[in-house]
Amino acid sequence: MSAIDINCDMGESFGPYRLGADPEIMPLISSANIACGFHAGDPQVMRETVSLAARHGVAVGAHPGFPDLQGFGRRNMALSPEEVEALIIYQIGALGAFAQAQGLRLQHVKPHGALYNMAARDPTLAEAIARAVRAVDPRLILFVLPGSEMEAAAKRLGVPFACELFADRNYQPDGTLTPRSDPRALIRDAREAAARAVQMVKEKKIRAVDDSLIPAEGQTLCVHGDTPGATEFARHIRRRFQEEGIQVLPVARILGLSG
Amino acid sequence: MSAIDINCDMGESFGPYRLGADPEIMPLISSANIACGFHAGDPQVMRETVSLAARHGVAVGAHPGFPDLQGFGRRNMALSPEEVEALIIYQIGALGAFAQAQGLRLQHVKPHGALYNMAARDPTLAEAIARAVRAVDPRLILFVLPGSEMEAAAKRLGVPFACELFADRNYQPDGTLTPRSDPRALIRDAREAAARAVQMVKEKKIRAVDDSLIPAEGQTLCVHGDTPGATEFARHIRRRFQEEGIQVLPVARILGLSG
Amino acid sequence: MSAIDINCDMGESFGPYRLGADPEIMPLISSANIACGFHAGDPQVMRETVSLAARHGVAVGAHPGFPDLQGFGRRNMALSPEEVEALIIYQIGALGAFAQAQGLRLQHVKPHGALYNMAARDPTLAEAIARAVRAVDPRLILFVLPGSEMEAAAKRLGVPFACELFADRNYQPDGTLTPRSDPRALIRDAREAAARAVQMVKEKKIRAVDDSLIPAEGQTLCVHGDTPGATEFARHIRRRFQEEGIQVLPVARILGLSG
Amino acid sequence: MSAIDINCDMGESFGPYRLGADPEIMPLISSANIACGFHAGDPQVMRETVSLAARHGVAVGAHPGFPDLQGFGRRNMALSPEEVEALIIYQIGALGAFAQAQGLRLQHVKPHGALYNMAARDPTLAEAIARAVRAVDPRLILFVLPGSEMEAAAKRLGVPFACELFADRNYQPDGTLTPRSDPRALIRDAREAAARAVQMVKEKKIRAVDDSLIPAEGQTLCVHGDTPGATEFARHIRRRFQEEGIQVLPVARILGLSG
Repeated sequence: MSAIDINCDMGESFGPYRLGADPEIMPLISSANIACGFHAGDPQVMRETVSLAARHGVAVGAHPGFPDLQGFGRRNMALSPEEVEALIIYQIGALGAFAQAQGLRLQHVKPHGALYNMAARDPTLAEAIARAVRAVDPRLILFVLPGSEMEAAAKRLGVPFACELFADRNYQPDGTLTPRSDPRALIRDAREAAARAVQMVKEKKIRAVDDSLIPAEGQTLCVHGDTPGATEFARHIRRRFQEEGIQVLPVARILGLSG
Repeated sequence: MSAIDINCDMGESFGPYRLGADPEIMPLISSANIACGFHAGDPQVMRETVSLAARHGVAVGAHPGFPDLQGFGRRNMALSPEEVEALIIYQIGALGAFAQAQGLRLQHVKPHGALYNMAARDPTLAEAIARAVRAVDPRLILFVLPGSEMEAAAKRLGVPFACELFADRNYQPDGTLTPRSDPRALIRDAREAAARAVQMVKEKKIRAVDDSLIPAEGQTLCVHGDTPGATEFARHIRRRFQEEGIQVLPVARILGLSG
Repeated sequence: MSAIDINCDMGESFGPYRLGADPEIMPLISSANIACGFHAGDPQVMRETVSLAARHGVAVGAHPGFPDLQGFGRRNMALSPEEVEALIIYQIGALGAFAQAQGLRLQHVKPHGALYNMAARDPTLAEAIARAVRAVDPRLILFVLPGSEMEAAAKRLGVPFACELFADRNYQPDGTLTPRSDPRALIRDAREAAARAVQMVKEKKIRAVDDSLIPAEGQTLCVHGDTPGATEFARHIRRRFQEEGIQVLPVARILGLSG
Repeated sequence: MSAIDINCDMGESFGPYRLGADPEIMPLISSANIACGFHAGDPQVMRETVSLAARHGVAVGAHPGFPDLQGFGRRNMALSPEEVEALIIYQIGALGAFAQAQGLRLQHVKPHGALYNMAARDPTLAEAIARAVRAVDPRLILFVLPGSEMEAAAKRLGVPFACELFADRNYQPDGTLTPRSDPRALIRDAREAAARAVQMVKEKKIRAVDDSLIPAEGQTLCVHGDTPGATEFARHIRRRFQEEGIQVLPVARILGLSG
């Protein structure tokens, strides 16, 4: 029987500001990437989000980002590997304490936004992240873009990792994501995206922009929570997975690790 | 044989800004209260400070404060107990991750500045802090002002605590600290302060402003790191303790707890 | 013919976070209190909000607050008068530059949230604010709660001021606002609030909680932009004002000052 | 008679943190670049720094930077031109209000750190800065690196500008600064630097790293305030200028503009 993890960014509200649809989406996913107060989130939001995840049996992970609340962590920042290492350790620890306070343990770490994208291409940055994750807890699973420098760094350093698939993004023939500058980058139709998700899980293949079938192997599927229709999108994927007999499980169980 | 812990606020630098004399003072103390990035400190400073403490065998503790870098956490802020609880959990976790990354465990928590002072008088705030500390790790030792609401809250909630003594502060006949508005508040002479510290440890008594001898029982002695002459002050106390056969040990050992 | 100013807090979004219904409410008001980046707002939001106000002929004013984005400037902070004076000057200047860049001049200053409430009761804080406003531009109109220390300070220092009325709040017999802890504090019915607004403008009287008629003299009426139904509320008041022949004008014109 | 402006970064302290030697250096310069609270500085520091400059007859200018206090504005950030434009307007306005409160007017704007360096190479960023400066006050003088995109943008947009010379930096044969990665980048000897400054002012030439004499025309000379020996360095240059009959004047007077 096939199985896959569904992850989603959560806990991106801050103070008086609400973002996302956490209460609606949480029941539909198996792993929550929770913002840690740098690019989004604050201590109370983190606490409530961990609690919401716990009530739905969703595994919790840290979603560390650049210290750039105004830019939502989406603006590239030229930080040294030492700076990145330290801010990753800090954010994992901060979120980990809320998990601990509720009798939970963090399952995974997924860098956010510009940090994720920069580290996918920069081996030094990728190693800094992998080192930080390992230093705090060697059981933490790092979410990586397949074929990226992040995956390579996780392998080199012996950090457990999960490859991430995107149901609502198009792929290039070489397996990288179609850049957002290309009008074909996003799959906006929920049915089409769900069909692609099923194909990725069952056949471990995906149709690229040039119509070729390319390998797409991953253990966790990313859904976006801050787009209009995000909840409907997630519901549709869950329904299709059920019809196809695909189980949705936290990634630690997919990987056979003790979450 | 008598023994006492010496604690000092550490890691209060931030980005390009240096504060305190950490490298000079660290070898002279047994417990470091390390700022956690809210009122002072940043991820790299925290990392280096934990590392410095480790090299000197000094026990590390979290020194959480209000989210007020400009005011250095010294300005009262009207936060709800839930807000305080969450920001304490956050800051303990953030520092704890740096300890964990170096194979250490946090020994204690000492709230900083306005938060310490407000919680000493406010039972609701004091309980919020004690709850937060217990939630993250029930072995953490909370530093309290003797006779304060913080001590009462720690007792009520069963949180291990250590009473804090001040060598460079005068006391009122009722055992509270002489307010800073009183010109006699501070003991500026290092010899006198050291003599008072010895008396507190050996006789568990201290001479109050009215010249009466009052009880002064505590397990940890606070020295200040950011005043001119702080290092000399600490050196003098250490010398006097040695002459008097007073051992300086991390507070967990004084209390017979596994630090 | 009667006339009144209608003011509303605007520009409270931040980075990726949206708050309020600025585009809907702007056409319905005559003075915009624009957040300045401390409790809410950021440089781009400020710029767009000034531009939106300009397009609708709405006078712009600074809405300075405590440096507390997470608490939205609603948490009391114990700042010194010097600190408050400096942060008011800073925020007025920052917003003023966006006005200047669009060929406008600031009309007024309305302190936000906890700062407004604390200064209403604290003469030293109130004077600090009045001094700051006068220092930047002596033509700026300070919005004050009638009968408050803010009004007294504005009078003492010769700072032009406008008294603020609240259509959706109940009043005590002594003219102060019914505290929010009292269930009667808020007028939730738009018709009732509009009727009260008309009465305040035309009769300069308002019915207090004990049913007595008390004086209510002011030049600017505050409407809230961040409550559900805020736009409908403002529309209803505008309609009633039109029916009653009450003109809505920026407060500088009401006061006969060159805005 | 020759004349030159001497500028220095000032007001880089923050909250409890001190940086630089403002009181010693202020009497030695003619233009102060004052931090505006984003990469350094806070409202009170800005106020005191403007006041210190006023007491010494030093012209004040805004020194806007990236919103990155921890990185001191020295880390590249990928901001859009619109974001940069808005944050420049904001920071000029904030500082301008302190000048206005003391009866002064800003003379100039010098972008800080990474923003200065990025804009020197990026025409879009450079134009955003020039547009922002012009929008707030078309009389403001923009400090530019000679030959940079900043100079080109100022020319294109008709923004008054001053070319900046560096006494303690080496130059490449093409007139650009020798990169800091080159061991010859910095002139560490105060005598040599002073001699170079004199040559730049009197002969409008400087000896490049390859020993060739290249043109070096500028109206303002930058001295650094945060390096050890900065005060001695500035004193030495002043002494040499006096011996050579070189007047030190605010740049607006050098350019014949009404400062």
